[in-house]
Amino acid sequence: MLFFTQCFGAVLDLIHLRFQHYKAKRVFSAAGQLVCVVNPTHSLKYAPTRCAAVQTSTEQGVLPPCHHHEAVHDPQLVPCTCPLFSCPWEGHLEVVVSHLRQTHRINILQGAEIVFLATDMHLPAPTDWFIMHSCLGHQFLLVLRKQEKYEGHPQFFATMMLIGTPTQADNFTYRLELNRNQRRLKWEATPRSVLECVDSVISDGDCLVLNTSLAQLFSDNGSLAIGIAITTSKVHNAEAEM
Amino acid sequence: MLFFTQCFGAVLDLIHLRFQHYKAKRVFSAAGQLVCVVNPTHSLKYAPTRCAAVQTSTEQGVLPPCHHHEAVHDPQLVPCTCPLFSCPWEGHLEVVVSHLRQTHRINILQGAEIVFLATDMHLPAPTDWFIMHSCLGHQFLLVLRKQEKYEGHPQFFATMMLIGTPTQADNFTYRLELNRNQRRLKWEATPRSVLECVDSVISDGDCLVLNTSLAQLFSDNGSLAIGIAITTSKVHNAEAEM
Repeated sequence: MLFFTQCFGAVLDLIHLRFQHYKAKRVFSAAGQLVCVVNPTHSLKYAPTRCAAVQTSTEQGVLPPCHHHEAVHDPQLVPCTCPLFSCPWEGHLEVVVSHLRQTHRINILQGAEIVFLATDMHLPAPTDWFIMHSCLGHQFLLVLRKQEKYEGHPQFFATMMLIGTPTQADNFTYRLELNRNQRRLKWEATPRSVLECVDSVISDGDCLVLNTSLAQLFSDNGSLAIGIAITTSKVHNAEAEM
Repeated sequence: MLFFTQCFGAVLDLIHLRFQHYKAKRVFSAAGQLVCVVNPTHSLKYAPTRCAAVQTSTEQGVLPPCHHHEAVHDPQLVPCTCPLFSCPWEGHLEVVVSHLRQTHRINILQGAEIVFLATDMHLPAPTDWFIMHSCLGHQFLLVLRKQEKYEGHPQFFATMMLIGTPTQADNFTYRLELNRNQRRLKWEATPRSVLECVDSVISDGDCLVLNTSLAQLFSDNGSLAIGIAITTSKVHNAEAEM
């Protein structure tokens, strides 16, 4: 009897642990595809000056320090690579992933195809949703941003950045897909490097852009599911050459 | 010698005729796919009142006469089905195609997959581009509209309408595809019926929407190529059931 009670207790503990794990990571698998529930981050600050500095310096092959840092560092030694705007962190490209995980608690998911489920789409702009995606030996950052480019008319912008150099980014193609209510919208492009500014990608509109009405059509109960897939573009080039 | 001169003359005539034919229809085939060059139509008038009237009446299953007509007609005898706003024409659904061809000189193209090449994308809003597409025993109307939903910020809206009833439209799926500069954007949806108002589809944003910057990225020398494909959605339903 004691044995059965202990067994039952152990099973309950396991269920509880499993639930805790789910609650902590908010990641679950549905219909064979990895679905990640992503909560929004309210963006406090958008400083366009930093973007301009990053763009100019990246063109020259030099990585600048953050604009809002008082101390002047050697730009080649301490590049500023955190793509989140309100963050004053500086560090090498190699440690961006651990910084995003530890400081910003951004989840990292493995797998060729995942579903990014952004919650609370109704929240006022500016709001960001982030997830990291580990695939084909590299880490990618998906950014979904709600922003008012035109006052009073918020739009959603989604893009994928490689946590790597622009040359490395050229080897990949990412696909974002929305599918609901007998409508399907697909965006395919080469990811940008996090060394280029995510804000400039969004202000250029060179990403998946959704009006509020279209975002509502694709949303279910205030959440937007975006299917993500990454492939190597080298394969396509080889096919084209053949 | 005379024989050769005549032969050469005949060849020249044939070339000239061929050129005239191309110039008149402005339709040519490139890489096995039918490409149709579509010139813009400057829209003079957008009267939202008509849309509201059409929507309400279609919900009740009754087709109203045009709002801007002075005479009051029996709505079931003389439905207003011309989707072009500045046109005061009234007529039955069965004669819409011939009206669009004869009065508005809208080309009709045959084939499962065609390319719609809209020229002069830089023209100020409001501007429309139209083409009719004959496929799977039905006629469809592709509408590309440049419109300023937010003042000073023109956007492009593309949708496909079936020249038929809403019930008939439910049997089809249309796909619009843009592909250029290592970027690809695909929109798939059920076509709307021309009995529903094209203006309301566009104001609802339930179509392919492009910001000016994205339209420029997909344009080549001021022209935007949109790949169009239509399929029967019954096949998909049957697959889903299996």
